[in-house]
Amino acid sequence: MKEFFKVTDLKSVLEYSSAFPRVETEDIPLDESFGRILAVSIDADVDLPDFMRSTMDGYAVRASATFGASEANPAYLTIKGAVPMGESPGFSIGSGEAATISTGGMLPEGADSVVMIEHTEAIDRTTIEVYRSVAPGQHILEKGEDIPKGAVLVPDGKRLRPQETGLLAAFGTKTATVYKKPVVGIISTGDEIVSIHKTPAPGEIRDLNMYTLSGLVRKAGAVPVPFGIVRDDFDDLFKTCTTALAQTDMVLISGGSSVGTRDFTIDVLSALPESDIFVHGISISPGKPTILAKSRDLAIWGLPGQVTSTMVVFEIVVKPFIEHISGLSQINEKNFKLSARLSRNIASAQGRTEFIRVRLNHKDGILWADPILGKSGLINTMVNADGLIEIGLNTEGLDKGTEVEVIPL
Amino acid sequence: MKEFFKVTDLKSVLEYSSAFPRVETEDIPLDESFGRILAVSIDADVDLPDFMRSTMDGYAVRASATFGASEANPAYLTIKGAVPMGESPGFSIGSGEAATISTGGMLPEGADSVVMIEHTEAIDRTTIEVYRSVAPGQHILEKGEDIPKGAVLVPDGKRLRPQETGLLAAFGTKTATVYKKPVVGIISTGDEIVSIHKTPAPGEIRDLNMYTLSGLVRKAGAVPVPFGIVRDDFDDLFKTCTTALAQTDMVLISGGSSVGTRDFTIDVLSALPESDIFVHGISISPGKPTILAKSRDLAIWGLPGQVTSTMVVFEIVVKPFIEHISGLSQINEKNFKLSARLSRNIASAQGRTEFIRVRLNHKDGILWADPILGKSGLINTMVNADGLIEIGLNTEGLDKGTEVEVIPL
Repeated sequence: MKEFFKVTDLKSVLEYSSAFPRVETEDIPLDESFGRILAVSIDADVDLPDFMRSTMDGYAVRASATFGASEANPAYLTIKGAVPMGESPGFSIGSGEAATISTGGMLPEGADSVVMIEHTEAIDRTTIEVYRSVAPGQHILEKGEDIPKGAVLVPDGKRLRPQETGLLAAFGTKTATVYKKPVVGIISTGDEIVSIHKTPAPGEIRDLNMYTLSGLVRKAGAVPVPFGIVRDDFDDLFKTCTTALAQTDMVLISGGSSVGTRDFTIDVLSALPESDIFVHGISISPGKPTILAKSRDLAIWGLPGQVTSTMVVFEIVVKPFIEHISGLSQINEKNFKLSARLSRNIASAQGRTEFIRVRLNHKDGILWADPILGKSGLINTMVNADGLIEIGLNTEGLDKGTEVEVIPL
Repeated sequence: MKEFFKVTDLKSVLEYSSAFPRVETEDIPLDESFGRILAVSIDADVDLPDFMRSTMDGYAVRASATFGASEANPAYLTIKGAVPMGESPGFSIGSGEAATISTGGMLPEGADSVVMIEHTEAIDRTTIEVYRSVAPGQHILEKGEDIPKGAVLVPDGKRLRPQETGLLAAFGTKTATVYKKPVVGIISTGDEIVSIHKTPAPGEIRDLNMYTLSGLVRKAGAVPVPFGIVRDDFDDLFKTCTTALAQTDMVLISGGSSVGTRDFTIDVLSALPESDIFVHGISISPGKPTILAKSRDLAIWGLPGQVTSTMVVFEIVVKPFIEHISGLSQINEKNFKLSARLSRNIASAQGRTEFIRVRLNHKDGILWADPILGKSGLINTMVNADGLIEIGLNTEGLDKGTEVEVIPL
């Protein structure tokens, strides 16, 4: 028996991500920026709002004029005018005066608060009764109350959600400098693999890994580029890897990293320019026969051929590398995992980190994680799964009822 | 004081979604199908795998020939040949025979299991020792074991994840019939609103709602189409609504649904062809002044002008309508919410469903939801928020430590 792998533990594998540089940046129109990662932080160049704004329909007043006002003892104010929407009022008010104002209107000089229309009554065209007192600052936004001038609007490394895009729009940002979407090349290997456009002969299967990996790459915010199916041949794989590395920011090879006739993948990766084999085997299950190499500045992966193993390795190992080169800052990105309770005991071998597919079910107000049975290579186990749970390196198993974190699939 | 709204409760509002038909379908190439919603369920036309396949590198054998084998008492088998990858073996094996096989290889006639290479030793070119017994079916996939012929591969109404795309690829699906992405028109209203390309004059603010709403529409899997800013004018709004309805599957009007000078929105919606006002006010906070109308077959919404209210209404109310017309089946779509503990008491008015912005923090192994303070209209409260929590219609508030479900933002 040969020892094929000097396995690396998961934590150490993930630390290699810092060896790879981030992708370049580009300027894009703000309305295309949703989901993109900001490369240069943007500061507030003015106050938001830039003027004192009403948050209610009613009357702009000087608060002190309403102190003590009640239904029994209303305050009487003179209407000085109406604030037109979207314009400077063009007049100021004194202590006994009020101005009609709508939500979003600009307070006239002299006003410090707004009385809601529901707490007033118009006596005639120029006089109102006020039934409640307001405090200075009530029902208004102060200048700069939302965002003061000079504050950081959005830090670099943040993935833009609709609210960040809206905030940038409020400050007139027309274009945003974001990281380019990493381009990820995908190569399938194996003499038994045929295009999905062919009917497989006996012994052949269709190239589903190309499709699962493309979907996973897209889901991670990157752009998949297929480089087709390569037969089990050193020269062909070397040539395709070279082509892919020249056109992309990362390369995934599916199949070809298991022991047996196909372990020349490691020879191909070793022969690439300025090559370094970082990882040959990871102490995770599924996914042990995974290779990580560096050629010049780029990561190139040998992934297990089995579709389910490849998917797990992608989620757990490859995705953090894509996020790293995408410019995503881990400080800004919060990944909160679902918590559920295990519905049955699971045994696990020590010395490796194990990922178990689970299906989630609500029952009696509790979210249960049901481990999915069946051979690990079956794609139906991934189709039936809602997520993965992790069983640690030094854990022999988990008991029914244990609280587990679920990585969504 | 006027009663402006006959408010509808949230549950009743959501039930109106069934009044709107689903969008049309289209055929797209499988590699563009990630994230799309399948419109016609797809069945397995063959077994997967279509032949008995090895899941290990080793020897294909008849299991009974290995029964009782151990290190001390190995079984001796004659190598009949090697299974070429991607081909039918072209030979069969008898009881005392074995065939070299790689992971993914097709078992020869007569074999029912695979012995792992690690449990064997080659004596010479034609003989192996086997040190462990295998059971029939071990280390192989039976024909149809992953997916049997005739099974439903993916049901209609399911959003395609990478694993579903891969499964369809395995069956040679070249194109998938999916629902079109709904096209959602967005109209901004208000005399104080200016394009983000302009420097606002005093009293004016930039049209950030167009950007937050566009982002939210994209996030919901639909296509936003901006119809610009309409001044507070019946004829202009009527004309723009008519244009938008002719080109889209749903229309959102932001601003114009609050009380005050701008309540002619309801008049415009009432005047549209075959119009029906379903909802004029919802018993939620924020978001009470929301209008839902139907014109012919399409939903048209009057959303609050305040950006934070609009975002909450979109997440809670509008999104389920977009998902409905997108063809998404609620049976297939699982939405598991994060669970967290409230970090402080929150008071709430009865008679309305309240949505509170929260920031999530891990502390002492517990996920805490910290309610975000500050005036509700401030966009910074949305930028700082990780999610929303709901306080029910008949709840006066929630105590510190209460387990709450978090709707991610």
